[in-house]
Amino acid sequence: MAVKVIDVNVGVFDENNRIADEVREKNKADGTFMINIMASPGAGKTTTLLRTIDMLKNPADAGTKPLRIGVLEADIEATVDAEKMADAGVASIQVHTGGECAMDASMVKQALSEFDTEDLDILFMENVGNLVCTAEQDTGADVNVEILSIPEGDDKPLKYPLMFTVCQCVLINKIDTRQWFAFDDEAVVQRIHRLNPDAAVFFVSSKTGEGFDAWISWIRKQLR
Amino acid sequence: MAVKVIDVNVGVFDENNRIADEVREKNKADGTFMINIMASPGAGKTTTLLRTIDMLKNPADAGTKPLRIGVLEADIEATVDAEKMADAGVASIQVHTGGECAMDASMVKQALSEFDTEDLDILFMENVGNLVCTAEQDTGADVNVEILSIPEGDDKPLKYPLMFTVCQCVLINKIDTRQWFAFDDEAVVQRIHRLNPDAAVFFVSSKTGEGFDAWISWIRKQLR
Repeated sequence: MAVKVIDVNVGVFDENNRIADEVREKNKADGTFMINIMASPGAGKTTTLLRTIDMLKNPADAGTKPLRIGVLEADIEATVDAEKMADAGVASIQVHTGGECAMDASMVKQALSEFDTEDLDILFMENVGNLVCTAEQDTGADVNVEILSIPEGDDKPLKYPLMFTVCQCVLINKIDTRQWFAFDDEAVVQRIHRLNPDAAVFFVSSKTGEGFDAWISWIRKQLR
Repeated sequence: MAVKVIDVNVGVFDENNRIADEVREKNKADGTFMINIMASPGAGKTTTLLRTIDMLKNPADAGTKPLRIGVLEADIEATVDAEKMADAGVASIQVHTGGECAMDASMVKQALSEFDTEDLDILFMENVGNLVCTAEQDTGADVNVEILSIPEGDDKPLKYPLMFTVCQCVLINKIDTRQWFAFDDEAVVQRIHRLNPDAAVFFVSSKTGEGFDAWISWIRKQLR
């Protein structure tokens, strides 16, 4: 599958919230639920998405409806992630932010105009690898998800509080590496819930698939 | 040691380069060499700095001059890193960027006015954990160093090329975890040198100290 690349212009930031609502209205009309995935560089966004999409498209239980998924890949200038999605047969579009450290709603709107989302149940956006700027922008997504990986450490909610405040769900990823890193599970959950008492927190390994069932159920619950 | 906190205002960005030169002139006059440390969240900036500072302050070889070190800790709003520095007896100051995703030269200038750098041989700055915005700002540092950790993956120079272009040195950290992560050493060095042929690259473990001698020698060489 060929990778499509769009070079978006810098968004009109003061209009961002209005455009974000417009994006949500368009997606609602199309029956598309948009999930904004944020994380540090290297936390495992792409690997997590690939496994998540596979599980949503091909449910183990015959009674569960397979979902139609698309991905907006946002990067400063690379296309490696969109190529990985294309190789996995996932409908994806690469957005180049042109040096901007995060997607904003106008970039999303521009990308949606080139992406036929009407036939999608879920549109994932893999945002730029960044815990600061991404959290500051309403992209028009219906929910925000942060992936924090075990090697990064359990102090991240202390240092990047806005990120953990704006997310409805936090995945603690790479739990298969837990034995090699000092990481306090209870402390991280407490730090997240102090900022955001309603956040769902799931411990997962995008490498082994451990913990994914609960995360997949959470996504399906959001669609209702 | 008490932690000092400064809440800096947003810098005047169009004047940034002029102020960066001013910072370099002041530091040169004071005999202080400034090293800007950048990395993703959780790449090991603080741990690397603590070991580096210890080795520069307390050289194993009696003929090597012990260096006087200070640290500017930049964070959105936390003070955990400055507290770690203070606990280790390192002169440090905490700068709060007030939501800004990177330090700029005017923030550094403001911090320097509150920090007696005249008696310092080296001033390290631990920038905000971020591979995008930090690379876009000349902070007035004499050299830029990026810390990339093994768990983040070897594709980061492809995705955050500016970072690897503006750095004189790249530390590949957490090599003690190499056996658990797919990471191609040769590929990462090639990707870095394609962007920046003169960049020094050192493979280190801030946990075990492996590879630190070469990095410490590199720093001392910059001072001459």
